Amino acid sequence: MSEKKIPYKIYLEESEMPKEWYNVRADMKNKPAPLLNPGTKQPMTLEELSGVFCTELAKQELDDSTAYIPIPDEIRDFYKMYRPSPLVRAYCLEKKLDTPAKIYYKFEGNNTSGSHKLNSAIAQAYYAKKQGLKGVTTETGAGQWGTALSMACSYFDLDCKVYMVKVSYEQKPFRREVMRTYGASVTPSPSMTTQVGRKILEQHPGTTGSLGCAISEAVEVAVSSEGYRYVLGSVLNQVLLHQSVIGLETKKALDKYEIVPDIIIGCAGGGSNLGGLISPFMGEKLRGEKDYRIIAVEPASCPSFTRGKYAYDFCDTGMVCPLAKMYTLGSDFIPSPNHAGGLRYHGMSSTLSQLYDDGLMEAVSVEQTSIFRAAEQFARVEGILPAPESSHAIRVAIDEALKCKETGEEKTIVFGLTGTGYFDMVAYEKFHNGEMSDYIPTDEELAASLAKLPTV
Amino acid sequence: MSEKKIPYKIYLEESEMPKEWYNVRADMKNKPAPLLNPGTKQPMTLEELSGVFCTELAKQELDDSTAYIPIPDEIRDFYKMYRPSPLVRAYCLEKKLDTPAKIYYKFEGNNTSGSHKLNSAIAQAYYAKKQGLKGVTTETGAGQWGTALSMACSYFDLDCKVYMVKVSYEQKPFRREVMRTYGASVTPSPSMTTQVGRKILEQHPGTTGSLGCAISEAVEVAVSSEGYRYVLGSVLNQVLLHQSVIGLETKKALDKYEIVPDIIIGCAGGGSNLGGLISPFMGEKLRGEKDYRIIAVEPASCPSFTRGKYAYDFCDTGMVCPLAKMYTLGSDFIPSPNHAGGLRYHGMSSTLSQLYDDGLMEAVSVEQTSIFRAAEQFARVEGILPAPESSHAIRVAIDEALKCKETGEEKTIVFGLTGTGYFDMVAYEKFHNGEMSDYIPTDEELAASLAKLPTV
Repeated sequence: MSEKKIPYKIYLEESEMPKEWYNVRADMKNKPAPLLNPGTKQPMTLEELSGVFCTELAKQELDDSTAYIPIPDEIRDFYKMYRPSPLVRAYCLEKKLDTPAKIYYKFEGNNTSGSHKLNSAIAQAYYAKKQGLKGVTTETGAGQWGTALSMACSYFDLDCKVYMVKVSYEQKPFRREVMRTYGASVTPSPSMTTQVGRKILEQHPGTTGSLGCAISEAVEVAVSSEGYRYVLGSVLNQVLLHQSVIGLETKKALDKYEIVPDIIIGCAGGGSNLGGLISPFMGEKLRGEKDYRIIAVEPASCPSFTRGKYAYDFCDTGMVCPLAKMYTLGSDFIPSPNHAGGLRYHGMSSTLSQLYDDGLMEAVSVEQTSIFRAAEQFARVEGILPAPESSHAIRVAIDEALKCKETGEEKTIVFGLTGTGYFDMVAYEKFHNGEMSDYIPTDEELAASLAKLPTV
Repeated sequence: MSEKKIPYKIYLEESEMPKEWYNVRADMKNKPAPLLNPGTKQPMTLEELSGVFCTELAKQELDDSTAYIPIPDEIRDFYKMYRPSPLVRAYCLEKKLDTPAKIYYKFEGNNTSGSHKLNSAIAQAYYAKKQGLKGVTTETGAGQWGTALSMACSYFDLDCKVYMVKVSYEQKPFRREVMRTYGASVTPSPSMTTQVGRKILEQHPGTTGSLGCAISEAVEVAVSSEGYRYVLGSVLNQVLLHQSVIGLETKKALDKYEIVPDIIIGCAGGGSNLGGLISPFMGEKLRGEKDYRIIAVEPASCPSFTRGKYAYDFCDTGMVCPLAKMYTLGSDFIPSPNHAGGLRYHGMSSTLSQLYDDGLMEAVSVEQTSIFRAAEQFARVEGILPAPESSHAIRVAIDEALKCKETGEEKTIVFGLTGTGYFDMVAYEKFHNGEMSDYIPTDEELAASLAKLPTV
């Protein structure tokens, strides 16, 4: 098909939307290492996992052999309200960069949660409802996940208890109000509502909280409340499974126009977006059908892939969650106050960690001010004001396109634009005022937190 | 076509996007009254208008006979980045209301400006660039229009000077930062940069500004700076022309599925959205081809249609702009601090005023808390967090759908969802906390401001 016919935005028909999620683990020779019980150090059983997660989600977490899992109609109906998301040809960015590269981005920000997080939130809420639960608990940092879950729970009429890191609760009142609009209860963490919260407040009365602490509170409430389970927006295998809808739509849209990408780029915090975006492409790679360059982009301030260690570690700072084998900076690692809140996690999805360890993908880390320069450049020509998280992928897509300009190669670059930055204007303001700094942890700092990895 | 086949979101193909705007004035027997020179009280000539507006836009302002005006390719290319916008079937809302009515909404919020304003901003920026201007000036209240214009100017590399009502500048720093991201200069109004600003600051040192004052400053800068013109985001005929893209897409999407609306509903401040949405339908009505109920919804706190007078009035409080014949509350009228900033204008589009006066449309006013109840109900089932302005249309759409539930009628309702409320969370917070009040001006207050209408 001639290039002229490719529209600015490729939309699939509703009938072309995926009817099944794709489970990349089924095609992996080296399976991701299992979650371990933190007490026994033995693989978590379905029964153990079902105490924390909904049973169906626990099954999905453990299932590394079923390649395609049907998307229930109720979830597909919800998807239809904001999906398919467009695959956009970045004609204006290409022109601005004067590059022969062809750049596409899958834009997941056109929904009220502002990001791709809704894809898994609605699935997790659905299974909770189906199990007859009263509600779910979770934590949120910057607030994208909390917002997405609030929307999903509101749709299925489930109670939603969000523990929001106190500093975000105070500094991001707008996200909090979006969650309240959807009927969620939002509690600043640490709080007096849990044992772990009270303990932390006793030890550190002035603390503004952390994601790790909020996780511990949300888990405690879930396991101690009748009819509640805990849900998580990233890292887990089940989340990557749900997020495969991003990659499946992307692949179908590309196939429609016979476009074959050379490079696929995604930002990586816990791995939900990247894992979802790349899954069908990685599947082809694993099955030896095609080859692609796949690049994970992470903040230089929280470089789990590029400077972390592949080892079992705690998923939370409270050490109540199972152990996961992953690229990690140590559960003790406190990233500097980077503005890409969604990428400030010490570990990385076990699935992606295994794929990276097997040499099936690359990783690169980038600094904050360079991210915001890319974000602003992108916004001015493509219209969309990107989230700081998403802008990590934009940065590397631009860098790769500029390399093509040097070499004259007409590479096709696809990247994931996970969300919008409407609730990140404080960060943009700092950038505009020249008040933003870069921070890279020293080798000593990393060594110190990695020294505390648990022995398995 | 059977109803089952109607998807949640009807998207047009890029090739189906309008190639011409539709100028409803061409089909009006009673043309809207001309703008008058405030000094001579004579109709403004093209030459006079061209001192304030770009020449091509001045021509569009005066043209009440050409039905279809081609959309330049450069503007269509920009439209392709965020248009066509979806026409959404509100299946979930219908189910929640348990109504036999079929509800559709045209959603204009999926772009960074967050509203339909971008449709005219890009057109106005294009003509300014084509005329070889250096830049444009404008005012903004809540910030949607300023954001849209900043995006448009950034795309065409035009300078953009925005006078932002001081109280909004201070209370809505995020909107300001979005504009700065797109390279606009944003000045709190009143400011020391203009004569009119200095005069007002001298008389009222503590003033937090008003839209009327910001207009006066922006116009002063435009007419006194080499290579600058003034642009406006609503009220004007040219703006309604550009916004006809909303209605044309809506009509085409409905026609594709052989859907004929019974009722068309839009919120009305200056009239840009309503005028654009209804234009092709009103055209059919004017030509006697079809009939539709068309309802304008305005805030009870600023009820120009329902309680104003159809008369010539000043468009700004500084009285430097031309006089327009319109439904007005008097240019002196200060609406209460309603949260739908985009609807707080004392007058109404001359075109819509004439159509309303001719009995071709209805108008209804609604109170603030009732708006936010509708907004929250809509958000919880349809996912989208609506702007307070847009929620006026939601309120009446819900009310009409509930009437259908009473009568059993299967009416088809179409309304305009002009934008998202991501920058309106302070208002939502007040609503959640029960701190929001309603305010309706007294007859005495209205009589006082209407007593000051100019004599023509």
